[in-house]
Amino acid sequence: MREFSWPARVYWEDTDGGGIVYYANYLRFLERSRTEWLRSLGFSQQALAREPGVLFAVVNVSVQYRRPARLDDELIVTCAPRADGSVCISFAQRILRAADAESLVSAEVKVACVDARTFRPTKLPEPLRAALQ
Amino acid sequence: MREFSWPARVYWEDTDGGGIVYYANYLRFLERSRTEWLRSLGFSQQALAREPGVLFAVVNVSVQYRRPARLDDELIVTCAPRADGSVCISFAQRILRAADAESLVSAEVKVACVDARTFRPTKLPEPLRAALQ
Amino acid sequence: MREFSWPARVYWEDTDGGGIVYYANYLRFLERSRTEWLRSLGFSQQALAREPGVLFAVVNVSVQYRRPARLDDELIVTCAPRADGSVCISFAQRILRAADAESLVSAEVKVACVDARTFRPTKLPEPLRAALQ
Amino acid sequence: MREFSWPARVYWEDTDGGGIVYYANYLRFLERSRTEWLRSLGFSQQALAREPGVLFAVVNVSVQYRRPARLDDELIVTCAPRADGSVCISFAQRILRAADAESLVSAEVKVACVDARTFRPTKLPEPLRAALQ
Repeated sequence: MREFSWPARVYWEDTDGGGIVYYANYLRFLERSRTEWLRSLGFSQQALAREPGVLFAVVNVSVQYRRPARLDDELIVTCAPRADGSVCISFAQRILRAADAESLVSAEVKVACVDARTFRPTKLPEPLRAALQ
Repeated sequence: MREFSWPARVYWEDTDGGGIVYYANYLRFLERSRTEWLRSLGFSQQALAREPGVLFAVVNVSVQYRRPARLDDELIVTCAPRADGSVCISFAQRILRAADAESLVSAEVKVACVDARTFRPTKLPEPLRAALQ
Repeated sequence: MREFSWPARVYWEDTDGGGIVYYANYLRFLERSRTEWLRSLGFSQQALAREPGVLFAVVNVSVQYRRPARLDDELIVTCAPRADGSVCISFAQRILRAADAESLVSAEVKVACVDARTFRPTKLPEPLRAALQ
Repeated sequence: MREFSWPARVYWEDTDGGGIVYYANYLRFLERSRTEWLRSLGFSQQALAREPGVLFAVVNVSVQYRRPARLDDELIVTCAPRADGSVCISFAQRILRAADAESLVSAEVKVACVDARTFRPTKLPEPLRAALQ
């Protein structure tokens, strides 16, 4: 599957007293890109939660912080998804500074498809599995 | 009703690139104090959401920012609740710096009791109304 | 001055356990719109912090929450700024749901120009005052 | 070095529309525990930033999400630090539900000591290195 890209802008809300983006907040940027990738395929998470009744839960995350992002920076947030068994999707993700394509953050994120009521692991919806191939 | 107090500590997550607490994040401190006031009366918001099936929704907020809170500051977050009709509670709230009782923020917050499913306004649960008198 | 508009999208990070946007997080959307209004006039807050050495500090906020925003909602965040004395700018702001232009939130936000080192109030930079007229 | 523990409470601000703590927000809990561990040794990050002029920057994070934390949960957030070369500290961390000691999250976090102005890696302050042995 090709790499998907989504822009983000750094606002005051994202920074901390060190003058750079707070380390937890990069995970918000990463999630936006995954959500927009799903949307680009025509999947709405609200619709999936109703029918077939599934949500995506993050199983594990690993993040390398290389260089800090700063207020006003324009970022490019990528995700390259691949099916990981019949229940999970693994995403290789990067956050780049748009101005010079400098790589700021890289991450691996594994999400599981779960039943929206019981939070039990369940198979990825068939149309999504098809899209992942 | 007497004023209720709850402590808070300023962490990196609360600050922004200006080196002070980000203006939206004071509202998180204010909400923690309201939640702990409810808990101090024996009310669990999770239990209320199940039976009688109500949530609290903020109707309006007005906040005066007097002096900034900084990393590591210990804060005192107060709330003085009063019944505001049969559906709403209004809270007069303040955030003080613990070290010198300097007043940093003052706020008025009005919350409405709403049906957990429809979000329609509904009467405050009787035990809570009794506690507010 | 004309009303300025900026889009925002509701992501998981913005919602809370009630399934709607957490009340403090609307203030992040409001701030993004003010920042983008400044940027649209050619002002960078990072540049202003260096020369002439000023920041903008929120003095007070008043927010009316009319209807909740939900996951995936596209929002329009407006701001109509006006000079408020020689030090402050007051913004009338609204958050609309893009799909139907339903008004979800309205707000008044007053910000003061302050010295970036001392946080003391200081006059608005002349080019910004000119732009506000 | 012994494991350090710090309590946290889950508030509305921490949850998302799935009714559980948003995955990025566990990193805030983890950071609070590391900060309180430093404070328990007598180190203030504000003081260290002035003299000898150092900050701590997160280099990498790896997080396993086992079970979700929910609104009102009381959590125990642990950290077991160890020196990792002369510049870094690595923390093994866990988040437990206080009620039943169920393990919800485990994490490995590596932080580097950096110059507060240049963000260049620099040796851990001697008193901190001594405390880590």
